[in-house]
Amino acid sequence: MASSLSPPEVPMELHVKNREKLLKSLIQHLSISSRPLRGFVFLQGGEEQTRHCTDHIELFRQESYFAYLFGVREPGFYGALDIATGESILFAPRLPDEYAVWLGEIKPLSYFKERYMVSAVHYTDEITKVLHQQYQGSGNPLLYLLHGLNTDSNNFSKPADFEGIDKFKTDLNTLHPILTECRVIKSELELTLIQFANDISSEAHVEVMRKTKVGMKEYQLESLFLHHTYMYGGCRHCSYTCICATGDNSAVLHYGHAAAPNDKTLQDGDMALLDMGAEYHFYGSDITCSFPVNGKFTRYQSLIYNAVLRAHNAVISSMRHGVRWVDMHELAEKTILESLKEGGLLCGDVDAMIHERLGAVLMPHGLGHFLGIDTHDPGGYLQGAERSKEPGLKALRTTRELLEGMVITVEPGCYFIDALLVPAMENSKTSKYFNLQEINKFRDFGGVRIESDVYVTSSGCVNMTKCPREIQEIEAVMTGAPWPILKTTIPPANGEI
Amino acid sequence: MASSLSPPEVPMELHVKNREKLLKSLIQHLSISSRPLRGFVFLQGGEEQTRHCTDHIELFRQESYFAYLFGVREPGFYGALDIATGESILFAPRLPDEYAVWLGEIKPLSYFKERYMVSAVHYTDEITKVLHQQYQGSGNPLLYLLHGLNTDSNNFSKPADFEGIDKFKTDLNTLHPILTECRVIKSELELTLIQFANDISSEAHVEVMRKTKVGMKEYQLESLFLHHTYMYGGCRHCSYTCICATGDNSAVLHYGHAAAPNDKTLQDGDMALLDMGAEYHFYGSDITCSFPVNGKFTRYQSLIYNAVLRAHNAVISSMRHGVRWVDMHELAEKTILESLKEGGLLCGDVDAMIHERLGAVLMPHGLGHFLGIDTHDPGGYLQGAERSKEPGLKALRTTRELLEGMVITVEPGCYFIDALLVPAMENSKTSKYFNLQEINKFRDFGGVRIESDVYVTSSGCVNMTKCPREIQEIEAVMTGAPWPILKTTIPPANGEI
Repeated sequence: MASSLSPPEVPMELHVKNREKLLKSLIQHLSISSRPLRGFVFLQGGEEQTRHCTDHIELFRQESYFAYLFGVREPGFYGALDIATGESILFAPRLPDEYAVWLGEIKPLSYFKERYMVSAVHYTDEITKVLHQQYQGSGNPLLYLLHGLNTDSNNFSKPADFEGIDKFKTDLNTLHPILTECRVIKSELELTLIQFANDISSEAHVEVMRKTKVGMKEYQLESLFLHHTYMYGGCRHCSYTCICATGDNSAVLHYGHAAAPNDKTLQDGDMALLDMGAEYHFYGSDITCSFPVNGKFTRYQSLIYNAVLRAHNAVISSMRHGVRWVDMHELAEKTILESLKEGGLLCGDVDAMIHERLGAVLMPHGLGHFLGIDTHDPGGYLQGAERSKEPGLKALRTTRELLEGMVITVEPGCYFIDALLVPAMENSKTSKYFNLQEINKFRDFGGVRIESDVYVTSSGCVNMTKCPREIQEIEAVMTGAPWPILKTTIPPANGEI
Repeated sequence: MASSLSPPEVPMELHVKNREKLLKSLIQHLSISSRPLRGFVFLQGGEEQTRHCTDHIELFRQESYFAYLFGVREPGFYGALDIATGESILFAPRLPDEYAVWLGEIKPLSYFKERYMVSAVHYTDEITKVLHQQYQGSGNPLLYLLHGLNTDSNNFSKPADFEGIDKFKTDLNTLHPILTECRVIKSELELTLIQFANDISSEAHVEVMRKTKVGMKEYQLESLFLHHTYMYGGCRHCSYTCICATGDNSAVLHYGHAAAPNDKTLQDGDMALLDMGAEYHFYGSDITCSFPVNGKFTRYQSLIYNAVLRAHNAVISSMRHGVRWVDMHELAEKTILESLKEGGLLCGDVDAMIHERLGAVLMPHGLGHFLGIDTHDPGGYLQGAERSKEPGLKALRTTRELLEGMVITVEPGCYFIDALLVPAMENSKTSKYFNLQEINKFRDFGGVRIESDVYVTSSGCVNMTKCPREIQEIEAVMTGAPWPILKTTIPPANGEI
């Protein structure tokens, strides 16, 4: 069988619960500040985009906040939540008759009401009328619009806009932090989707490992992954563009984009670093596996790989509600530096190395990030929180304490990047830590990253990613061993083994 | 072997020749109107786009006019052609140091000069300085910018913009029609890429046919296609979102988008209409195959399929330089209507049916469109040409005479679309043509489309698409017969058969 998985039913109750959670949180916030408990949360869904001046339409994927609250896959919608009554209202575009010929059945509003489990559905040209009728207050209704900073992109979300918005009062400041915080803590139903995205992606990673051969192109590994997750998991989108980096490309953290398009040929002796994750009904996964393309780790590859794996495992063993993420980042740095010292690449005091930010030379990115409807899910920095200016730490996408229900990636890495390594080896403060003879052997090594998606609980955490991680597991899977490895061997009936 | 194909080397001379062709054409135009032969053609390449407020970057695909002239795969470029000297100048973005860590090697300008075979490469922050130095005239240099209507989208191309453009004179009207016309007539090198896109896509269609089984999901056919074209053809992009329509979905002309996402289960007795084409180095293909998902045509399916196939073949047999495309459209309509009359679905005079636009009830779309760097390649309507208001004819993406070197799709179809059929059956002018008893048997049929990409020559045309088309060919391939079918059977050595 090509896969043990199949796409699960999507529970639309998930979005009902997301809306209830937001309203509860918003009402609490308004109550504390003695503000009236009326008005509407009002969001605009995404629109289809054409490519430049042409009629080439990019495959639409819903805006993430709108997806969170309404789960709507179609473009051109608006959505409102009535704070006074708790009712949810979708506004669907009124489609022209030709739509039925070119794009499909024009669905009645009742279809969307049932599918998306909302209180009512109207057309987008009725927003003003409907909300004025619905409003339980005097004067123009108040709309809580979504406007706030995404701390990963430094972009601001664009508040909803429509003809007639001048007939409303608007509030741009209240909604964003509250809605963002709702997204930070995942519900059970959200976790089931993230788990499925992880399951199908983990299986696809194993499939890719098994089919990887010297002489292939990097993009063929991408194609295998995409095919497995779509064919057997129904995942039409990935969480992000696949990073299929081999050889020295594996030191490029975000390889795989249009200017570095996974087009190198796999060479004997290369490591592969494959960072690929599928998305299922908006919820994503983000998984990295690193392995030798010829299926057999060298001593050097084992050294770096195990350094990263030790960091990965040390972090996961330490994570639980209340732990500071910055401490986890430093734990990963420390574990990697210690391993490299044991391996003879570095020498000297590890704490002093950390103080000199040597960890950021080898791992310039943050240890991980929230994961959900966005790959870099929002909420990493609470309003007013300041970003560190220190190498490595400044790249952290969150510095928060872990809370039960967060899903966060654990993705330590160790890379040999000349642009960072050469200055550090030449710097009078840090040069003494390098064993030049040894480290020079790794200058073309590239890098290793191991990334799992981890769900935080009150007493620990759950690793949602199910890829082979130990060297012997990877080598076994690449020679065709089953995965997951059967833990118990059932003895044959006659008792012989 | 999984494929007989592999991705060919991309000849960058292709873009050199595209630039030479444009300059020749532009200089001719300027000469005729006695305008000075200096100034610059100046284009802005595309930029990477993030999804809404997030840092999710959509996989970049170059703007098509810029791709035509420069073949540049990276975002953020500008390009200039010096009309006086014929020199070509690319302007590359100056990348920050962190780029080397996150996104890859910062390539020297010489890399781009060599790769894209241009006369010089500078940084985008040097545009004003470089063009002023280069300019062979007095006063501010004149920039010919790209601004004009795309007649498929009704959008205007956005002219280049940069800091310092106020230090130039600009011309918004001259370039667009001339550059568009260059794109209409394909060069030999362009044809080789379109041919490869056709070859790998044709092979992928056959692969999909072979693997199609009742009970699968439509998107699994999409996944098989995408995988084959990427894995074996290196095609990371498709020309357009795959249309994988089965059963009644096959009457939805542009099925497959986010609101109708190829998610139906294949039923025994369904026809499949698969409209899928890969893109290779910007140049596309656009191919539709229609076949029964269970591998065996019924009598009804054969009737409609052969009606469309006869139209497809009749058009291709008639195409050559100088033929009017509108005539080809009407030939397709007539052929389909005649077949349906023979099949007993329609009755009466076929010419009268055409006059009443009955052809557009069954085939509401145009017969085909130019194909190249865009799926709907521009240039379908020359400036001032008016679009018909008649059903069917108004949907034509071009009404021009065919010219040698055009690549155009031939895609007749026959669909049973209630939104069109019911009004026509109720209309007093057209109701008499329908044999209600017969046509009602087809109300849930969906539709059939057969689409090939055809290159026009002086004396005829070349069908670049190599899919099984005859019913017996399709049925044979779906039971595992080789494709292309071996024309000669080599008898076994002992003479027995």
